[in-house]
Amino acid sequence: MRVVITDPNLLPLRSELEALLPHAELDWLPDELLVSLKSADVLVGPAFDQEMADAAPGLRLVQVAGAGTDRITAGGVPVANTYHHEDSIAEYIVWALIALRRELPQADAALRTNRWRSPVYDRALPQPQTLADAKVGFLGFGHIGRATWRVLQAFGAQAQAVTASGNADGLSWAGDTSQLPRLLEESNALVVSAPLTEDTRGIIGTAELEQLGADGVLVNVARGPLVQEQPLYDALRNRTIHGAALDVWYSYPSSGDQAQPAKAPFGELDNVLLTPHLSGITRQTFRGRIHDIAANIAALAEGNELRNLL
Amino acid sequence: MRVVITDPNLLPLRSELEALLPHAELDWLPDELLVSLKSADVLVGPAFDQEMADAAPGLRLVQVAGAGTDRITAGGVPVANTYHHEDSIAEYIVWALIALRRELPQADAALRTNRWRSPVYDRALPQPQTLADAKVGFLGFGHIGRATWRVLQAFGAQAQAVTASGNADGLSWAGDTSQLPRLLEESNALVVSAPLTEDTRGIIGTAELEQLGADGVLVNVARGPLVQEQPLYDALRNRTIHGAALDVWYSYPSSGDQAQPAKAPFGELDNVLLTPHLSGITRQTFRGRIHDIAANIAALAEGNELRNLL
Repeated sequence: MRVVITDPNLLPLRSELEALLPHAELDWLPDELLVSLKSADVLVGPAFDQEMADAAPGLRLVQVAGAGTDRITAGGVPVANTYHHEDSIAEYIVWALIALRRELPQADAALRTNRWRSPVYDRALPQPQTLADAKVGFLGFGHIGRATWRVLQAFGAQAQAVTASGNADGLSWAGDTSQLPRLLEESNALVVSAPLTEDTRGIIGTAELEQLGADGVLVNVARGPLVQEQPLYDALRNRTIHGAALDVWYSYPSSGDQAQPAKAPFGELDNVLLTPHLSGITRQTFRGRIHDIAANIAALAEGNELRNLL
Repeated sequence: MRVVITDPNLLPLRSELEALLPHAELDWLPDELLVSLKSADVLVGPAFDQEMADAAPGLRLVQVAGAGTDRITAGGVPVANTYHHEDSIAEYIVWALIALRRELPQADAALRTNRWRSPVYDRALPQPQTLADAKVGFLGFGHIGRATWRVLQAFGAQAQAVTASGNADGLSWAGDTSQLPRLLEESNALVVSAPLTEDTRGIIGTAELEQLGADGVLVNVARGPLVQEQPLYDALRNRTIHGAALDVWYSYPSSGDQAQPAKAPFGELDNVLLTPHLSGITRQTFRGRIHDIAANIAALAEGNELRNLL
């Protein structure tokens, strides 16, 4: 079994994946991809186009090492994906909610200038609230929402969801998109974890941010354009909402590690956490994924059923 | 029942406490404390000295609105304390461990200069690890350690403790202080949550930080001097350990909100989270405390048993 691997995110786990597949021949990040594909049985990578398909007559599986398959543009070969990012993203969301609600980054910045920014030392500051007082609204409640809800329950939080995927244990309620105004009114934290579609693009704008309100925080781990950029910036600057954690953006580096993530200067605000689409990027995510990948390659060799086929 | 309240942390919950004690007369932060104490049945506050005792012939209870009773220096009157800070501190510890292990503040700072600091965009960076790979060592395992362990389990973490208070469900092991080297060797996160005594002052120094090691993070929510200041600073600057969250300090404001928290310039380091002793200061903490306080005042009025008497 010849396996061509084009996803550099798997490199840190190279020896672990090779140990899982002692009988496969693994070709890592080949310089000449089209040549390497000529004798490949499996492609492990995020992209598969017609030129690659034409170069790979014996290909039997395209295994994406993540959830997204938007760069698979050629047909004719079975495609499988894999998840395992949901626990890492849930952990990011918990970090962000605690930080934003308790204004911990602001306290850190102040103490670096010897100012003790806490209601004990400055009676004008309100007492912060813990997750036990959080009312979390999930916009979208799939893998990520469910994993987040599992850990939030340990902190005593309450939650509701607008989702197509139905209710879950312990949620106060779940409804369809028509319930979005109610979700925003009843929540003091909004977790955006829905797919980006024609229906969801720009679904959070000025009116929705006003409904979330001045005690509300927003965490976007889905796709930037679900939330309208300028209204979000204005709501943060004017304290229409309390704060936001943004892991997904309006523009991305075309190559390298430099890019302005948005037109609006979010980086000038102290009530925003800015991260470069890393919420799911952990050792744990990719360790889970290589086990799925190895299992599918072994199943292919033995003629067994593949998992996560699209 | 006349109750004199000197703790300003209770002011934000004034109407809630008054609703719990409709038959008591509450005297909030009196300008002339010694005069006000003359007819007081209960003092609710952090401090009680001989001058106050002499001024309060009818006092039947000193109710501290927190755990610490180090400012109660006069005898002769029953003293009770209260807790309820452990869930807020546990939440702070979870926030700190996620931030430090995944270097999220560094990613935030970088993106504010348009640099996408993640292994996806910079292959030289390691893949961060989640709490599922955390091995948490508790130095002290009382109220705070147990509350922290409850929530950490939801993330799949593993833990062990050096403690006088015995084992707990799910810990890998618990031992006495002689087991500290083993704790440090087997942990990649150290939570300092032990009381400050002659035996624990300076218990973490250069050798202990070296044992914790380059992948280890430290969170101190107990008292600053448990950890030796200059060795801690050196270990952070030289990356002998990976990072630290410091909520407790080596010096405090004598009044107001300004003070340099340490001689060493911790605020110049990017692998440290600095917070002004706020980990337990939340609305939830003080809401729990006013219920304890109201219950004790009611019990005193009715001749019932008091809780948390020292």
